Amino acid sequence: MSVQRLAVIGLGLIGGSFARAVRKAGAVREVVGYDADPARVAAALELGVATVAAASLEEAVREADVVLLSVPVLQTREVLSQLASYLRPDAILTDVGSTKVSVEQDVAAVFGALPARFVGGHPVAGNEKSGVEASFAELFQGRRCILTPHAHQDPAALATVRGLWEAAGSLVCEMSAEHHDEVLAATSHLPHVLAFALVDFLNTLDSRKEIFAYAAGGFRDFTRIASSSPKMWQDITRANRSAVLGALDGYLGELHKLRDAITQDDGPAILEIYTRARDARERYLELVERPAAAKKP
Amino acid sequence: MSVQRLAVIGLGLIGGSFARAVRKAGAVREVVGYDADPARVAAALELGVATVAAASLEEAVREADVVLLSVPVLQTREVLSQLASYLRPDAILTDVGSTKVSVEQDVAAVFGALPARFVGGHPVAGNEKSGVEASFAELFQGRRCILTPHAHQDPAALATVRGLWEAAGSLVCEMSAEHHDEVLAATSHLPHVLAFALVDFLNTLDSRKEIFAYAAGGFRDFTRIASSSPKMWQDITRANRSAVLGALDGYLGELHKLRDAITQDDGPAILEIYTRARDARERYLELVERPAAAKKP
Repeated sequence: MSVQRLAVIGLGLIGGSFARAVRKAGAVREVVGYDADPARVAAALELGVATVAAASLEEAVREADVVLLSVPVLQTREVLSQLASYLRPDAILTDVGSTKVSVEQDVAAVFGALPARFVGGHPVAGNEKSGVEASFAELFQGRRCILTPHAHQDPAALATVRGLWEAAGSLVCEMSAEHHDEVLAATSHLPHVLAFALVDFLNTLDSRKEIFAYAAGGFRDFTRIASSSPKMWQDITRANRSAVLGALDGYLGELHKLRDAITQDDGPAILEIYTRARDARERYLELVERPAAAKKP
Repeated sequence: MSVQRLAVIGLGLIGGSFARAVRKAGAVREVVGYDADPARVAAALELGVATVAAASLEEAVREADVVLLSVPVLQTREVLSQLASYLRPDAILTDVGSTKVSVEQDVAAVFGALPARFVGGHPVAGNEKSGVEASFAELFQGRRCILTPHAHQDPAALATVRGLWEAAGSLVCEMSAEHHDEVLAATSHLPHVLAFALVDFLNTLDSRKEIFAYAAGGFRDFTRIASSSPKMWQDITRANRSAVLGALDGYLGELHKLRDAITQDDGPAILEIYTRARDARERYLELVERPAAAKKP
């Protein structure tokens, strides 16, 4: 299976790394790169991320067999409405948005309904870096990519998108957009919310200088995701608002239980929570670590 | 400066690594190892962590110039009361407890007051591993060690303990026990509480299997400290209860502010918190990373 012409709309870490990966695997002949920022298009061409630079959305998608949308989730509707009329009728449209219900809503709003050849996707990868300059072909190696087929899904389109992610080294799995948003709210969106809140809180303390200076390894790991793009995470938080709030409220309930145990100096209750958590993490560590074997470049 | 005979009471990751480090640096001639668990004493001898194995606390401390207490903080008082009568009058007593006010209280309770030759200490190092088998001489390289001199501190004892930690590669600094407990509650104890609570919460969800399976790199880093010893962290949480609760309540206030912003879909407020956090972490990253240069073996 080989795609003649892939259009990547939005040249950041994910779009750039996908372009590099599928070309390196020989799964795509040409990559047309487009970004609202012309400097990024130039950089993508210079870095060899794209083989063709497009000066407009029309130019980018007009002859594309597959169009990969890799823009901030909250820009999905606007960008789609600008390129929809230029899409080839047989073109496959897919995306990499970190939230999938909101993307389905945007796609349906622009096309009237979810097109059979639209395939929702989300590579569970990436790090706190961003920008096409940070892109690399191995980003998706051994990492999961979640595809969210819908009721009117064209199986051939789904197979093509799956093939591209597998060529990029991803472990592809499928689930509904709704389920995806719940799972990701818990594993990714909630931790980001908690980490941003923690660092912002510590930064309000008088002794913040020492606090950061005396922080040990665990703290660095714990707050690493607080170095992620604020704009991107604002978008994700808003786009997946109800699932994020659901996860946050569940977590707050747990945290208050633990707070009560600490207030009452209830050793056994504290130990029970800590032990359950440690055991759960250990038990699932293999599941978590296996797909991450080739995490970083 | 060289110490003739160091007694290490409690042969775990910290006590074992300290023994390895100071001997490697030639700052200590003999290391007498003692642990309530004879198997650990045997292991320490076999691993070369200790040069002499002690069968009892009396045997361990009787001829020691410096006694390093490296037991769980909540065992401090009991262990001290058992060894106090065997200490040489000129012996220096120091510890590695993660909380310092509780240790000062325990020492004062056993000796009637804080002895001039007691020096409170806390190496801000260690990882989620534990046990003497995991010990290594480089654990403290470039990491901070906080000493908490008290009102009746003997300067010579303080200088000796400082010298040993510097020989082990630590960046030594001094502050009061009270201030130490506040700073550590924020940077270390609170993050552990949050991580244990998060993993325990996720483990209650129906989709926990997927949740752990689809977790990305950020999640692994974020929850790594939830693989720490539950018993040890129960002790630390209880020993530093008031400072931990203070930090937890401050954090809960911040988290509720963020929750309100998300509930009201207040983009600017969300972005402001995320940006402040990202900037704060970036600004202090150098401070955080520098002492950690030689973090892991």
